[in-house]
Amino acid sequence: MLCLRGNLNAKIFLVGIGPGQAEHMTPCAKAAIVHAPVIIGHPDNLLQIAHLTHGKELLPLQHNPLERSRLAVEKAQNGQDVVIVSSGDPGTYAIAATFLDYLRQQNLNIDVEVVPGIGLASYASARLGAALGNDSAHISLSDQNTPWAAITRRLSSALAADFVVVIYNPFGKLGSARWEEALALIAKERNINTPIGILSQANTSNEKLLMTTLGQLPQIALPTDMLIIIGNSQSYFCGSYMITPRCYKENIGY
Amino acid sequence: MLCLRGNLNAKIFLVGIGPGQAEHMTPCAKAAIVHAPVIIGHPDNLLQIAHLTHGKELLPLQHNPLERSRLAVEKAQNGQDVVIVSSGDPGTYAIAATFLDYLRQQNLNIDVEVVPGIGLASYASARLGAALGNDSAHISLSDQNTPWAAITRRLSSALAADFVVVIYNPFGKLGSARWEEALALIAKERNINTPIGILSQANTSNEKLLMTTLGQLPQIALPTDMLIIIGNSQSYFCGSYMITPRCYKENIGY
Repeated sequence: MLCLRGNLNAKIFLVGIGPGQAEHMTPCAKAAIVHAPVIIGHPDNLLQIAHLTHGKELLPLQHNPLERSRLAVEKAQNGQDVVIVSSGDPGTYAIAATFLDYLRQQNLNIDVEVVPGIGLASYASARLGAALGNDSAHISLSDQNTPWAAITRRLSSALAADFVVVIYNPFGKLGSARWEEALALIAKERNINTPIGILSQANTSNEKLLMTTLGQLPQIALPTDMLIIIGNSQSYFCGSYMITPRCYKENIGY
Repeated sequence: MLCLRGNLNAKIFLVGIGPGQAEHMTPCAKAAIVHAPVIIGHPDNLLQIAHLTHGKELLPLQHNPLERSRLAVEKAQNGQDVVIVSSGDPGTYAIAATFLDYLRQQNLNIDVEVVPGIGLASYASARLGAALGNDSAHISLSDQNTPWAAITRRLSSALAADFVVVIYNPFGKLGSARWEEALALIAKERNINTPIGILSQANTSNEKLLMTTLGQLPQIALPTDMLIIIGNSQSYFCGSYMITPRCYKENIGY
């Protein structure tokens, strides 16, 4: 059970750079990136931190966190400290689970530090106002790592129990098929006036915030790269904000 | 519906300072604090940012986010920019929902910016390794703002649907009574070997990380100020890490 404590000198940092803008990247994340000679990550994420990586060995890997994990281990075994960058928070549908599970499977012995980042849901909620103001359920529709039956069971349970529901990766390799199935489940459990907040292309200059209702959603052309927040029975829109209050009755303070 | 767009010159920032250490506070949060002449927050949070607030008007308010909201509005109406600081993320059981809902109830017209912070759950998950590696449900046991029946329904649904469950505020004004009720529900739905990660006093030098199992939990003297992460059916401990993998079968990549 010592599989994850290092006997190498090298260390691997799993670093969350947040939604993309430098103003939302923590000093801890920045310090790890500045420190490590080798930086691995999605090409888009490496571009976002280009101002911090001059003279470093940059290893952009498009698609596969498992590949990033293997490469990071290889570099660390050669004695180099490595950063694997993740957009948002590395612990939320990102590198941390893949990497640590890989180390365990390989029974590898490397020192690891997970550096948290501003997660996409926190960022979207803030941009929307207070969309996540009460209990929330976070679900990825990507079924490459979780059986679809488990995902739909979670979605239905969360909807029935009046959680605010955050949906990650609505459009997967199957296109919009999973999302359309999910939308049917949502329509079964929630009122057509339920507020929906959608953040797309969070990391780019094309970032868009969309506010609509469950009834309007099917009429909207959705971007492929998005995070969807489905309000609970108490959520409402006010001006340019989506708010999920914590008070279920008027005049209840904290 | 223009209730939340400002016609005052003054602006109110709802700022998340993260788990407490400066290394986890974003530049955006720091900039807002440095900018505003008036800073409102819990005394502990004001202490954590004392290095940023020299010469500012500091208004520590122990308990009540509604009081903080009223005071911030009063200051803004006098033309001063205000920061209300929150530990963690202001959108997660913190000031954002309370404040924006208060503005709506009062039909007040003030410019607001929510600045996200590293949430306690992201931080705890990172300290544990990858505790939140798959779908998660976030539930506060504080029933001052949500009926207890709604909370227990959410908890039971989330447990039955195999979410990783994050429990906030397990000990409330009622002491451990709610937590003991919740623990009985957890024991009904989850195996005694279920990994449990507990982070306590995250903001302080007394920060403690505790790893145990559901079976052992009742034997442990729990701190009052804690966040509890209950693993799903796939979660495991390896060395000093708590990991929730995204692979439900061996050898499935992303």
